[in-house]
Amino acid sequence: MASLTITAPNGLPYVTIERDVEAPRELVFRCFTEPDLLAQWLGPRRYQMRVEAYEVRDGGRWRYVHLDDQGHEFGFHGVFHGPASPDGWVQTFEFDGAPGHVSLDTLTLEDLGGRTRIRTHSAFQSVTDRDAMVEAGMEMGVREGYERLDELVARLASEAS
Amino acid sequence: MASLTITAPNGLPYVTIERDVEAPRELVFRCFTEPDLLAQWLGPRRYQMRVEAYEVRDGGRWRYVHLDDQGHEFGFHGVFHGPASPDGWVQTFEFDGAPGHVSLDTLTLEDLGGRTRIRTHSAFQSVTDRDAMVEAGMEMGVREGYERLDELVARLASEAS
Repeated sequence: MASLTITAPNGLPYVTIERDVEAPRELVFRCFTEPDLLAQWLGPRRYQMRVEAYEVRDGGRWRYVHLDDQGHEFGFHGVFHGPASPDGWVQTFEFDGAPGHVSLDTLTLEDLGGRTRIRTHSAFQSVTDRDAMVEAGMEMGVREGYERLDELVARLASEAS
Repeated sequence: MASLTITAPNGLPYVTIERDVEAPRELVFRCFTEPDLLAQWLGPRRYQMRVEAYEVRDGGRWRYVHLDDQGHEFGFHGVFHGPASPDGWVQTFEFDGAPGHVSLDTLTLEDLGGRTRIRTHSAFQSVTDRDAMVEAGMEMGVREGYERLDELVARLASEAS
């Protein structure tokens, strides 16, 4: 199983996550930027996902909602800063439940020759904000999300063959 | 003269700036959000400023250019994240000359009863990025800009009286 590395350095307001996926970079980029693909993998398995906006361009807005089977909704939103390409892109991130607490996320996809290394670097406004995000159970959501991404790219590859 | 406090803590990717201005909070907010006012104070005296976009709303874009008397242009741009109000707002910031190096700026205006305390907190993607911004001469530009803001609010107050 691909290893997941989550780094939350002591005293610094960052979270850096690295994860390899067995898929070409262009396909991984599509899974991050096409709403119908994104909704099939991002976040824990127990949530449905509704993508309300996903304007992948400089200044574009994004917004999605995770829904559990009790009808609870958890909304997230942000803005794309700069152009998006497989080489990398920058977006802001905010949970509706913690307004004003924003992170600046830098995503890069490294081509490993058929495999892709996904790296996300999140810079928070404070170490306190970073810690709150980690303690909210971020790791489980990220881990399950990437397992679902493994399954999605395998499914897409088998459909294409 | 009002004191300017610039804090760039060792080893942390922040710059925090505090400056008091002798003007009501609503007027200071206008000077930050109305392009024709902004262009009269932001940045060093030696530059003219051309505001090309300033959409002060959730997801709105901003872009301005500083021009020196030799015809050189220095462009900056970003996106407003969340709604803007005198209570505070969040925006991204990027210099055209350093693409991909973005900061997340949180601005708050504290009402001190006729005076206003402006606080800006910039979170960078790395301490290296923060250091580069400080070493690029940020302090001089901020200092002169706020002196020009003092002059602008005095002028607006005298015109209104």
